[in-house]
Amino acid sequence: MSLAAHDIPEHTRQAEASAAAIAAGLAERFAETAAARDLAGGTPKTERDLLRASGLLELSIPAEYGGQGAGWAETLAIVRQLARADSSVAHVFAFHHLQLASVRLFGTPAQWEPWLAETVRQGWFWGNALNPLDKRTVARRVQGGREFSGSKSFCSGALDSDMLLASAVEDDAGGKLIIAAIPTRRAGITLFEDWDNMGQRQTDSGSALFERVAVAESEILSDPGPLSSPFACLRPLLAQLIFVNIFLGIAEGAVAEARGYTRTQTRLWSASPAAQVTEDPYILAHYGDFWVALEAARKLADHAAARFDAAWDEGLALTEAGRGEVALAVATAKVVATRGGLDLTSRIFEVTGARSTTAALRLDRYWRNLRVHTLHDPLDYKVRELGDWVLNGNYPKPSFYS
Amino acid sequence: MSLAAHDIPEHTRQAEASAAAIAAGLAERFAETAAARDLAGGTPKTERDLLRASGLLELSIPAEYGGQGAGWAETLAIVRQLARADSSVAHVFAFHHLQLASVRLFGTPAQWEPWLAETVRQGWFWGNALNPLDKRTVARRVQGGREFSGSKSFCSGALDSDMLLASAVEDDAGGKLIIAAIPTRRAGITLFEDWDNMGQRQTDSGSALFERVAVAESEILSDPGPLSSPFACLRPLLAQLIFVNIFLGIAEGAVAEARGYTRTQTRLWSASPAAQVTEDPYILAHYGDFWVALEAARKLADHAAARFDAAWDEGLALTEAGRGEVALAVATAKVVATRGGLDLTSRIFEVTGARSTTAALRLDRYWRNLRVHTLHDPLDYKVRELGDWVLNGNYPKPSFYS
Amino acid sequence: MSLAAHDIPEHTRQAEASAAAIAAGLAERFAETAAARDLAGGTPKTERDLLRASGLLELSIPAEYGGQGAGWAETLAIVRQLARADSSVAHVFAFHHLQLASVRLFGTPAQWEPWLAETVRQGWFWGNALNPLDKRTVARRVQGGREFSGSKSFCSGALDSDMLLASAVEDDAGGKLIIAAIPTRRAGITLFEDWDNMGQRQTDSGSALFERVAVAESEILSDPGPLSSPFACLRPLLAQLIFVNIFLGIAEGAVAEARGYTRTQTRLWSASPAAQVTEDPYILAHYGDFWVALEAARKLADHAAARFDAAWDEGLALTEAGRGEVALAVATAKVVATRGGLDLTSRIFEVTGARSTTAALRLDRYWRNLRVHTLHDPLDYKVRELGDWVLNGNYPKPSFYS
Amino acid sequence: MSLAAHDIPEHTRQAEASAAAIAAGLAERFAETAAARDLAGGTPKTERDLLRASGLLELSIPAEYGGQGAGWAETLAIVRQLARADSSVAHVFAFHHLQLASVRLFGTPAQWEPWLAETVRQGWFWGNALNPLDKRTVARRVQGGREFSGSKSFCSGALDSDMLLASAVEDDAGGKLIIAAIPTRRAGITLFEDWDNMGQRQTDSGSALFERVAVAESEILSDPGPLSSPFACLRPLLAQLIFVNIFLGIAEGAVAEARGYTRTQTRLWSASPAAQVTEDPYILAHYGDFWVALEAARKLADHAAARFDAAWDEGLALTEAGRGEVALAVATAKVVATRGGLDLTSRIFEVTGARSTTAALRLDRYWRNLRVHTLHDPLDYKVRELGDWVLNGNYPKPSFYS
Repeated sequence: MSLAAHDIPEHTRQAEASAAAIAAGLAERFAETAAARDLAGGTPKTERDLLRASGLLELSIPAEYGGQGAGWAETLAIVRQLARADSSVAHVFAFHHLQLASVRLFGTPAQWEPWLAETVRQGWFWGNALNPLDKRTVARRVQGGREFSGSKSFCSGALDSDMLLASAVEDDAGGKLIIAAIPTRRAGITLFEDWDNMGQRQTDSGSALFERVAVAESEILSDPGPLSSPFACLRPLLAQLIFVNIFLGIAEGAVAEARGYTRTQTRLWSASPAAQVTEDPYILAHYGDFWVALEAARKLADHAAARFDAAWDEGLALTEAGRGEVALAVATAKVVATRGGLDLTSRIFEVTGARSTTAALRLDRYWRNLRVHTLHDPLDYKVRELGDWVLNGNYPKPSFYS
Repeated sequence: MSLAAHDIPEHTRQAEASAAAIAAGLAERFAETAAARDLAGGTPKTERDLLRASGLLELSIPAEYGGQGAGWAETLAIVRQLARADSSVAHVFAFHHLQLASVRLFGTPAQWEPWLAETVRQGWFWGNALNPLDKRTVARRVQGGREFSGSKSFCSGALDSDMLLASAVEDDAGGKLIIAAIPTRRAGITLFEDWDNMGQRQTDSGSALFERVAVAESEILSDPGPLSSPFACLRPLLAQLIFVNIFLGIAEGAVAEARGYTRTQTRLWSASPAAQVTEDPYILAHYGDFWVALEAARKLADHAAARFDAAWDEGLALTEAGRGEVALAVATAKVVATRGGLDLTSRIFEVTGARSTTAALRLDRYWRNLRVHTLHDPLDYKVRELGDWVLNGNYPKPSFYS
Repeated sequence: MSLAAHDIPEHTRQAEASAAAIAAGLAERFAETAAARDLAGGTPKTERDLLRASGLLELSIPAEYGGQGAGWAETLAIVRQLARADSSVAHVFAFHHLQLASVRLFGTPAQWEPWLAETVRQGWFWGNALNPLDKRTVARRVQGGREFSGSKSFCSGALDSDMLLASAVEDDAGGKLIIAAIPTRRAGITLFEDWDNMGQRQTDSGSALFERVAVAESEILSDPGPLSSPFACLRPLLAQLIFVNIFLGIAEGAVAEARGYTRTQTRLWSASPAAQVTEDPYILAHYGDFWVALEAARKLADHAAARFDAAWDEGLALTEAGRGEVALAVATAKVVATRGGLDLTSRIFEVTGARSTTAALRLDRYWRNLRVHTLHDPLDYKVRELGDWVLNGNYPKPSFYS
Repeated sequence: MSLAAHDIPEHTRQAEASAAAIAAGLAERFAETAAARDLAGGTPKTERDLLRASGLLELSIPAEYGGQGAGWAETLAIVRQLARADSSVAHVFAFHHLQLASVRLFGTPAQWEPWLAETVRQGWFWGNALNPLDKRTVARRVQGGREFSGSKSFCSGALDSDMLLASAVEDDAGGKLIIAAIPTRRAGITLFEDWDNMGQRQTDSGSALFERVAVAESEILSDPGPLSSPFACLRPLLAQLIFVNIFLGIAEGAVAEARGYTRTQTRLWSASPAAQVTEDPYILAHYGDFWVALEAARKLADHAAARFDAAWDEGLALTEAGRGEVALAVATAKVVATRGGLDLTSRIFEVTGARSTTAALRLDRYWRNLRVHTLHDPLDYKVRELGDWVLNGNYPKPSFYS
């Protein structure tokens, strides 16, 4: 599957040539096996190693620590580009960068500067064990730090990772959330290959078990700590922006593959007034609708990313209102990308036809991947937040989901 | 999964108790393994044999030939009931009855009376090798009949069948469509186990090869022949009504399973104003919408079935206008069942949540099954036909799809 | 504007010939001036007098009291028929019959038998002063009955009426709702010609003032009283069913007028692939959608009316569950008629074109009438009730709105 | 009605303070009488004179000719701002600037430089008599120029104008379109006060009659002439962009007025789980949807305007592809603004309630204005064009509508 030039939005074309070009090469390779790997599930080891080798794991790391110094808009454009070909790989790639952002937002420079530098030097791939809704992992205070014990679900990209961002709740009355960055290979950590889902099948979003895992004080992100300021509260917004770009990439990929199929495989329906399938009035109408949905999501996603970068640059000077504006932009983009994408990934079959449902193509994976990923947190409550803004002037209340 | 009483529409409750009760028992059994068999694909041999043993293969056969003499409305209600649990099995079951209808519509009583009687006596299961859009199978005129040679795709339910309805085009200039009823085991017929699709995975809708298959004149349905009268043109309408009821059954099954999940597994979202998940305002709104979609489709499907039965009873006296009214009713029901069902089978996840996407549940099968089945012929052209009726007073032009 | 035969649904065709024929004649006459009267507003005096002369005010009155003895399904079909031409007149006509139903449901035979007989004998037209949400009118206990004092809003059809159903709240702590049937001309009643609205402009839904209006004990409907039993709780369901049929009539009228315009006035767009406007693929698609929306609403409305008649016939034997089933059917029909109608009355302009927006045609009145009328009570809460049924098995809680 | 700060999109906030501030003042004044003038119809003479006095008629005129030198994005932002308060006045204001753009695109500098300068000097207001679909006005070749004779419809803003852009077809076989700029008061021109429409009631889009109107050669825009180059083909795109911004302004105005009403007038529904109307879950959901619709349209409109400005700056160097990209951006924005706006202007009543339908408020004018204006050319064909781009890589074919 090759993506026609006009499916690639402008800002990607303008993105720094090298990163975009590298990502394009990877995306093409990932696309070749995406359907087969969707069937197989499991860890996309080859693809993860290709990412390691590509240098793109350093993309968002500032130049002073050896990285490529890309802004978030650029990083998200690469995420979207990869998601067109393979939304599972795009997810673990994006979450690697989300963990790097998290240590910068929640920890001290003394903590994250070496981590960023080591990530470049050693080619670390970061994974996730942070799910704050799963409170089964407990942090016990011990000499020199904490001991994490318990289970954790939805640990996307933890398998085959080098570093983990892990969370636990303190075992005292407060139940405070502790987040730490620890090597994946540390004693006591077991990662299960138990992710078997209807979509996003190679994200390894399975479960982990912590058995008295030693966590040093210096590994805990407590200064300034999670969601400690409007600036620190950018973390969930970056996560949500990643989702937006993955949703959009999935939708773009679906339309691109449908387009190729319609042009080469779909047969003109016997009752059509058109001379050929590419002139069928209803097929044209569907593609027009697809374009409208993609463009609306693209413009809102790009706008939100630009706002995010501006807010990021403000650092601790970022106000609640400033953070609130970003939250609105991100939520708006998410609603549009979700609705448009779900409609479109189901509707592409109207323009490809019955024969395109063969399991060999696995064209349903676009809908499955999107359907799964868009359930991260309920869309209804994003819409409600936007309504509360319009009607009452309230910004979305910061949380790990807003 | 058990279906709550209030999910079962009225007319089913009123259907002849025995057939409905037998179908209910089967549906419950099929439901237990439906997810596993969706994964496995292949022939639902156990379920087909249960159908054979149940007597339901005789459902639509008139009492004078030993059958149960059910009308089409009643037969379709049973199809819908089975589809709630397993839309693949419902499909091959329904197409068995469609073949029996076809021989009655296209052939002479001297042909179909023995076939109906033998179906009862020997427990025949009829399969499909009729796809009129696939013109690769050719009928050569030979002594005493024809010889069928060539391939045929989308042969739903042909594997493990006893009798086949097969089509071929005459190898002369006219290219007339020949339809015949022949034993599945006849020499020269090869059925391939090559159906591997994203949905409807146990319909065995794979391909067949005919190699100089002898077809006797007495097996050919040429008097009055396919689509030879408004009455004969009821055949595609029955096929479409079967689709409608399968679509509706899938949607009903999806809501029933979602409901059970929401009530027992779904967690209240942290930002919800409700005290419990079953009172969440947005979850209630989704379920309200689901009900509206199901009820609209149910009333239109029931209305179309009643019209169909009335038209069937008219026999050769049925006029083009009479047939046209049935066609409008069927097309209307199909549009509503398709649109409502596609929306609903994708939206159920909004009321079940992220954890319900585990492959263990295979909740995506409702959308996959419906998505595949609704592509039989393009919905856009059904809508166009209805528009042509409203604006220009033209009835749908009879064909194998309208 | 004449309505094409195929726009008239089946059951109307089968309705008692005389009432339907009379209504057809009236509708044709009303249609001629409907646009002009929409502009003028005010009381449709001529049309009200035509209704008086037509005998249709006796339609729902049982034969033993001199009426035509039509069931509710038949009465509602006449309402729908009139609404196609003029939804304001249809509303006051329907509410006349609603008041007659109300006295039968809330009062004693000794009360309502003479009222029904007098309605036939004297050609009474009943009006509404019942709005239970407006609690400004107070009932003071006096010798021999009550005295009503205060204002009342939304008194549809009160002007030019002969009898009124009026409500007031008792001026003691309980604030019990008192409903009485009184002559419109009784001393102390002032009806204001203050209804000026964006739609339903000739319903006279203005305000009334009661100044120490004497109400006799025998005029008060307290035995068995409002909403006193599942049977008495049919009153709001009849009101809602009236709305459904008016909504549907408006939508049918809109499509019929659009159709006539498209066929005779609309120009083929320059970029259309069609040879004439009636073959334009997108215009056909819109009309197909309109048909689907109308048919879905028609079947649900007819089903609800049949259920209502059956429940009515049960009388006081009607159970809460029996009443609940009717409430579900009515609410479902209302949701579909509202959504479909609002979409369609706005979308007709896509098939008629820019020139059809001239004020001379007042084609916008369909949307305006429907938009106003569908706001009687919030649709969101109807949907919620249906969701509560599906998810929790709760019937809609009886009230003046459910 | 005052517009809350957060309803005003960012780029307006950043627009040159003075023009925006002046427009804000005008908008506030226009809003006070908008409902009354919607009822009255006719020429908004007071408002036109306020525009003349405001200096905004010079907004898009380059500084070298005495104008304010605003770019098109800025000019369109002012159009949108005015449309929030009054879409009729916004339309004639925008079309004034469109005529100024037209003479720059279709004529020679020797022609348009004096016209621009005089517009500033004499405070000219330009009107429209250009409708290219109405071919009844004929241009006869006479000594020194042409003579225009015949009727012309849809002449928005011609009444009370100082200059007209008028079109006619040559009376020879070619039927070439001739466009000229002429003083409105020239002998032989009659403008009729015959615009009476369901919406946009003060645009004076009535008819004109030309009776042997002398048109000098120097007044004819034939060098380079209409649609003579990709650059000249920007004219219809500017017209379409004006529509987009008016649609968007109408929708923004509708939400702003609805918001004020909900907050101050709407009553909490009795069945609501919320404590106050501003917390009702469904009202919040509607407002959230409104925001999403507005934001999507805003971002696409702003993007299209930026593209348009860039293309304008290219002048005759603009390629077909460059013009095509603008056409896609404009069409996309138009589809989103149309669909979102039509839905929203009908749906606001769900959040304001039944009492808000009083004619005193004329809240229906938002839908009526939008419904009328969005019919300028069929949306279905805009969608088709976008589909042709996605599927076949074809840019929209330039015409007066694309």
